[in-house]
Amino acid sequence: MKEIKMIRWLTGLLLLGQSLAWAADALPSWQDTTPKQAILAYVAKVTQAGSPDFVPVPERIAVFDNDGTLWPEVPVPFQLTFALDELKVQVQQKPELKQDPMVQAALSGDLASLMAGPHHEGLLHLLALTHAGMTTDEFAARVRTWLATAKHPRFNRPYVQLAYQPMLELLQYLREQGFKTYIVSGGGADFMRVFAESVYGIVPEQVIGSNSLTRFERRPAGPVLVKTLEQLYVDDKEGKPVAIHQFIGRRPIACFGNSDGDQAMLEYSTQGNPHPAFGLIVHHTDAAREYAYDTKPPASGTLVTALAAAPKQGWVVVDMQRDWKQVFAP
Amino acid sequence: MKEIKMIRWLTGLLLLGQSLAWAADALPSWQDTTPKQAILAYVAKVTQAGSPDFVPVPERIAVFDNDGTLWPEVPVPFQLTFALDELKVQVQQKPELKQDPMVQAALSGDLASLMAGPHHEGLLHLLALTHAGMTTDEFAARVRTWLATAKHPRFNRPYVQLAYQPMLELLQYLREQGFKTYIVSGGGADFMRVFAESVYGIVPEQVIGSNSLTRFERRPAGPVLVKTLEQLYVDDKEGKPVAIHQFIGRRPIACFGNSDGDQAMLEYSTQGNPHPAFGLIVHHTDAAREYAYDTKPPASGTLVTALAAAPKQGWVVVDMQRDWKQVFAP
Repeated sequence: MKEIKMIRWLTGLLLLGQSLAWAADALPSWQDTTPKQAILAYVAKVTQAGSPDFVPVPERIAVFDNDGTLWPEVPVPFQLTFALDELKVQVQQKPELKQDPMVQAALSGDLASLMAGPHHEGLLHLLALTHAGMTTDEFAARVRTWLATAKHPRFNRPYVQLAYQPMLELLQYLREQGFKTYIVSGGGADFMRVFAESVYGIVPEQVIGSNSLTRFERRPAGPVLVKTLEQLYVDDKEGKPVAIHQFIGRRPIACFGNSDGDQAMLEYSTQGNPHPAFGLIVHHTDAAREYAYDTKPPASGTLVTALAAAPKQGWVVVDMQRDWKQVFAP
Repeated sequence: MKEIKMIRWLTGLLLLGQSLAWAADALPSWQDTTPKQAILAYVAKVTQAGSPDFVPVPERIAVFDNDGTLWPEVPVPFQLTFALDELKVQVQQKPELKQDPMVQAALSGDLASLMAGPHHEGLLHLLALTHAGMTTDEFAARVRTWLATAKHPRFNRPYVQLAYQPMLELLQYLREQGFKTYIVSGGGADFMRVFAESVYGIVPEQVIGSNSLTRFERRPAGPVLVKTLEQLYVDDKEGKPVAIHQFIGRRPIACFGNSDGDQAMLEYSTQGNPHPAFGLIVHHTDAAREYAYDTKPPASGTLVTALAAAPKQGWVVVDMQRDWKQVFAP
């Protein structure tokens, strides 16, 4: 028993030391400006045992949008590029697909038609053509192949090397402080799950995204799940808090987004939460290192109403140009 | 650095000691018969670093049915009792509900009408009446009140004191060995999440159950989610592997059930899994300490086809009378 006590004491000392070291160095790619200070102050507050603001570890749920929050969404959300590349492969195999007006729009680069409508119905139709009819394993293999070969047109890097370095540090820091980090994105869950673990350190079960049902089929080598379009669920806007309840079942205490599509989950996380809560918006202001695009609707990732609401709601706004030392890892 | 190394070494030693102690005592309520031996052998195999059977921690997903696997489902699934009790309260408040034939059936104790149909449509209709139209917080409060007052008719205990002691030990043991334990049940997710954390040690985000969408509403005190019947999803039979993919996104390596409703997820977990996988069925054979009911269809919790498939599939069958020293904690 004496040995156990000594080990516990030493371990406690070690953890305390780690914790203090983290507080100083956890976010090296962040400038020492308001957002970094606010993050550190908030985390210190809710992790301080005995404090009235203390939040028990199981309730430290942090949710992150993906496109525009953890990696770019310009010139178009990357999953759309995947879908277009996949469509080209499929049209070669099934030429009858060319009769589809949305396929024609996609192949001719008419993205406006695809993005029209409140839920980008054309885009979803395209995703359906390229994201259904195969098993979940087959789909994951296609995504993996694409991620290994495709490159971003401006940065000339594989897409998985475009995660925002400051956000990677933030994810890691929050996990070290007992937070469970989730993605809650309009992107497809099955698409994001292929790379979220290796890129963000977020396991598949913590990736919430747009989704539809699969169909269970018994095959000679064992059961498979075939992707379908049934009960297509668009995890955007008011759909985000709804999905958070469906998948997580408790209110997050921290929420990170970049567009009006994240406003409902920011509200759900921070308004009327019995725990102290934290909301943050990544504002794309950096045309030199990334893009400056988000306040000019209509565009994917429009940030107008959420930005206007931020001061009253107490949401921290990250000005990428001012608040981040670097955007991508070198 | 020397201190850190020493602490790591001591901690390692301590963990090794704990691990050896666990292997001997982790399942004290289990007889030393085939099921316990099979569980310990399987866990030893997949957690042995360097072994070809080793499974990395993030992939150690274990899924458990709830009714009949973690707690009883006789005389009727407990959530049905909750719904009937709730219905009585609601009929007093809204007498027009008495016009509903299913309400009449429920109040007259005609459970056969409620349970008819492949997905127990009548039951689901009753659940809908008692499980929709209020906020998620209001619903959770009603469940909490019921759990604190209602008692099981035979055992005369609150329902939350009827978790199977051997299964509680198994859940705890698996978690100590790096497994993430999930519930995958036909029961309602919002119902189970109220008690799963305190009773089973399973956090809300690891409770998968029947579910339907909520509606996001902005109210003066902050946003709420109102329970609806939209996109009602019955998490049973082939719906279980489909939900496992939707919520977890990877194939479990261990699956625990008790009825034919669990057969599809047992197949999905164990057939064609690239990792060594484990399937187990709790067979209700103990009329003295619990119930012996499951091989006599039609009944909730029928175990016929899955039991017949078990030997060929390599699924371990727990004979409750033979294999468990005790069923409930004293």
